Amino acid sequence: MSEYKPLFFKKGVVYLLNQLVLPHKVQYVPCKNAAGAAKAIHDMVVRGAPLIGQTAVWGLYLECVKAKSEADWDSRWKNAWKVLAASRPTARNLVAAMEDVQKQLKADTLTLPQRKKRFLAILNELERRWIDITNGLARHGASTLKIKGPVVTICNTGRLATLGRGTALASIEEGWKKGMISHVYALETRPYLQGARLTMWELEQLKIKGTLITDNMAAHLMATHKISAIFTGCDRVAANGDSANKIGTLGLAVLAKHFNVPFYIVAPTETIDKKIATGKDIVIEERSTKEVIEVRGQLIAPKNAKAWHPAFDVTPHELITAIVTENGLWDPN
Amino acid sequence: MSEYKPLFFKKGVVYLLNQLVLPHKVQYVPCKNAAGAAKAIHDMVVRGAPLIGQTAVWGLYLECVKAKSEADWDSRWKNAWKVLAASRPTARNLVAAMEDVQKQLKADTLTLPQRKKRFLAILNELERRWIDITNGLARHGASTLKIKGPVVTICNTGRLATLGRGTALASIEEGWKKGMISHVYALETRPYLQGARLTMWELEQLKIKGTLITDNMAAHLMATHKISAIFTGCDRVAANGDSANKIGTLGLAVLAKHFNVPFYIVAPTETIDKKIATGKDIVIEERSTKEVIEVRGQLIAPKNAKAWHPAFDVTPHELITAIVTENGLWDPN
Repeated sequence: MSEYKPLFFKKGVVYLLNQLVLPHKVQYVPCKNAAGAAKAIHDMVVRGAPLIGQTAVWGLYLECVKAKSEADWDSRWKNAWKVLAASRPTARNLVAAMEDVQKQLKADTLTLPQRKKRFLAILNELERRWIDITNGLARHGASTLKIKGPVVTICNTGRLATLGRGTALASIEEGWKKGMISHVYALETRPYLQGARLTMWELEQLKIKGTLITDNMAAHLMATHKISAIFTGCDRVAANGDSANKIGTLGLAVLAKHFNVPFYIVAPTETIDKKIATGKDIVIEERSTKEVIEVRGQLIAPKNAKAWHPAFDVTPHELITAIVTENGLWDPN
Repeated sequence: MSEYKPLFFKKGVVYLLNQLVLPHKVQYVPCKNAAGAAKAIHDMVVRGAPLIGQTAVWGLYLECVKAKSEADWDSRWKNAWKVLAASRPTARNLVAAMEDVQKQLKADTLTLPQRKKRFLAILNELERRWIDITNGLARHGASTLKIKGPVVTICNTGRLATLGRGTALASIEEGWKKGMISHVYALETRPYLQGARLTMWELEQLKIKGTLITDNMAAHLMATHKISAIFTGCDRVAANGDSANKIGTLGLAVLAKHFNVPFYIVAPTETIDKKIATGKDIVIEERSTKEVIEVRGQLIAPKNAKAWHPAFDVTPHELITAIVTENGLWDPN
């Protein structure tokens, strides 16, 4: 099933690939209304900003398509918005995605049936746009590879994280197809283990040769193997190129510099936030320490152990060889 | 129970602190004979070269002390040796420890009762020697700390890993007692999680303020906090100072250099192997990949995922500020 999708729409139902039970089980969660979409977002059945946003918009659609009048549409829209916005209060992209659709629909003067059709068209356009963007990321990322060799990646940045083909993993998939990648080393990415659970699963689906390593093996790997490149995704890029990404990315970038391995951040241009001058202005979210003293619900430290859980870190632009966007490579130095 | 010991002898029985069930349960496994000691070594109830060696010698003692004649002693010695040497065939220190005792006992011309007494004395001397060594490591390691601040450590290097007070953790304990350490960050140390399971438990017993982090948080920690020093143990040091230690140590050393944090290897002089010229001559043991795709028995990746499990890495001497021995500091550069 190399054509797995994290979300698809069929006969009035949105199906979401349940990322909570991967890689042990492939299960699609059907959503028939906004409440279902909100629950899937809240329970983390889906993850990744683009995917969460798209799921929310589908939630709105599933409600409004049933509207019997203009008033009914308005009431359904409002109620659905409320339940979806509350599903993950910290995900700003979620509300932004809904606002974007609202703006597009308001600009049109349409009858109710036309508006329903237009809504579906917007959803399809959004998906197509992401397919285009990720195809660009794939192409430009792969273009950096001049000799066949192994690459390294962290976290999960494939189809499960975006619409389309993903970010860093899209570059890797394209490099593999072009015969420029011999092997992918995936870091397990504690504490959530997205690398072990999701990236290794995606590599399997894409029939790409992958090897799992623990996060602390990256240095030994680079010291003993000639690594062609490191590709990572990114949550936000500051105007100067400093990039915030999953915890562990900074360490990987420092190692890359020490061992002379090219280090690429793969990010859609919309990730670049010109309003943020440097990485110093990016606030690092701290999450529950429970996820550090536990692994998938199993306690691994003394019960009352104190822990620290910064969810992201910031890689300064000096450590980044280039930022791969859908429009090409940007060397921030 | 700050006076916890990984091994103690009482009324004819050797009690071993079961490191398999820490930190969730404090349980001593009683050993009454060589088979019991061998089983504990085989099952990894005890770990760490000095402790394994001492457990094996206690196994020999428990048998021979029951000898009723010279012939009985010889037969018991031979049988016990066989079962203990087979308990962990790759642990060279285990046989070396038994050979050392054999040499000492052969040099003496003693009656059977005298020999039994001498055997017990040798065991006590060995333990005292380790207490002296680890006191030296504690003192010299702590002497490197000039201002109060936080330190970082990896794996488990305390009382649970040696006789006496441990290696890197002994330095940290002494630095804490002297008021030069505000806080200890322990890396969880995948795949075995010795940091999370054992170091965090030891810090709790010693009433030292400790915080658990995943291995990939070390870079962000150093980028955002002024860390006083990193202390790590070590499996073997080459003549030029290159040091093999638990996987992850090399990455930590590269980060330390990048962030200007002093990096200390804490090792008894007997760890320095003058016959090995450089780290290139140290063969890195690879262990079961099951430990990478599982965490404490729980599968975290696709069932058939390929993985890599180098158990150690080599830190080149250029990255080491000093090697702390019981005799003082050695700067290999």
